[in-house]
Amino acid sequence: MAAPALDFWFDFASTYSYLTAMRITPLAEKASVRVRFRPFLLGAIFQAQGWTTSPFNLYPAKGRNMWRDLERSCADLGLPFHRPDPFPQNSLLAARVALVALDQSWGEEFCRTLFRAEFAHGRRIDDAAVIADVLATFDIDTEPVLAAARSDAIKARLRAQTEEAQRLGVFGAPSFTTTDGELFWGNDRLEPALRWANAAAEQS
Amino acid sequence: MAAPALDFWFDFASTYSYLTAMRITPLAEKASVRVRFRPFLLGAIFQAQGWTTSPFNLYPAKGRNMWRDLERSCADLGLPFHRPDPFPQNSLLAARVALVALDQSWGEEFCRTLFRAEFAHGRRIDDAAVIADVLATFDIDTEPVLAAARSDAIKARLRAQTEEAQRLGVFGAPSFTTTDGELFWGNDRLEPALRWANAAAEQS
Repeated sequence: MAAPALDFWFDFASTYSYLTAMRITPLAEKASVRVRFRPFLLGAIFQAQGWTTSPFNLYPAKGRNMWRDLERSCADLGLPFHRPDPFPQNSLLAARVALVALDQSWGEEFCRTLFRAEFAHGRRIDDAAVIADVLATFDIDTEPVLAAARSDAIKARLRAQTEEAQRLGVFGAPSFTTTDGELFWGNDRLEPALRWANAAAEQS
Repeated sequence: MAAPALDFWFDFASTYSYLTAMRITPLAEKASVRVRFRPFLLGAIFQAQGWTTSPFNLYPAKGRNMWRDLERSCADLGLPFHRPDPFPQNSLLAARVALVALDQSWGEEFCRTLFRAEFAHGRRIDDAAVIADVLATFDIDTEPVLAAARSDAIKARLRAQTEEAQRLGVFGAPSFTTTDGELFWGNDRLEPALRWANAAAEQS
């Protein structure tokens, strides 16, 4: 039997990615599934569909419902919520720093802290100073991390990761992909995706 | 305390409305919530957003995921599934007949039977003969029902119902609205909507 595994695709600008980022680690542990955090740029995928901003901005009724739904969902989950302004925020630097961080033991906690900065405390993740602040809460040397995030190697890795997401059929965030080629979209599909990853491993 | 109530907005062409139509009645009974079945024309609301067909057709990656997700969801729920062709189907006559049927005791069962004809058996709900077939499975005189469905009064009622949906912020199907003005969108929100309807009634 292969070890159950799931890829968690997210964008720091994505509202429902916040919910998943806060939920996934304990649920995956309970389900014995190893999760890989995979930041990508949803904006690039939206652009390929001809959208210049979030569909939540393009379609006002959809957007209004999303904000209310998010508020209700956060209340149900006991998560603080602060509507980010502006929305969506440019998540390019955040994603690059996350790629560097995720090579380290504190990477997933960095991602959660950055999501909380944006969606619980209303801080701007497109502000390099905010990202540096979040980094500074970890017991690390922040300068080399920020330098690495701006390197050509990391820029290329983020581009490749976004292209991989698109190749796998990802069109929104959060999404989940399994080793046997299934794609699940949305925070609501976290539990089914974990169940699938488990069943797929049992059959392999 | 007011009696807990929830409006269930659906379109017969909508894939996830099939799942909700099959699930809602026992869940609502369990939650002691009185549900009102409210067919409307999602196509009219899509047109107002500038869409000429379903977003599942406009955005291929989104569409591919929906079909696969529906297949998996039906398997999880033990529901048969047959992908309708063409998609979406014109649901105008179906909605008009449903409006007539829902004034009768067998109306909700008619809706479920029509959803099954389309999504479990692959029959065309834009075909008047199929609708007549489904009606004929009930112990009723079908001709007056079909005649009423084609009356100006029912045509006007469906238009008014679709306008009411739009006024309530409905932008997709299924949707749920509560007496205290909440809107929930999607089959995934059926349980939270029932919980909300119950809590709202307790507070009123």
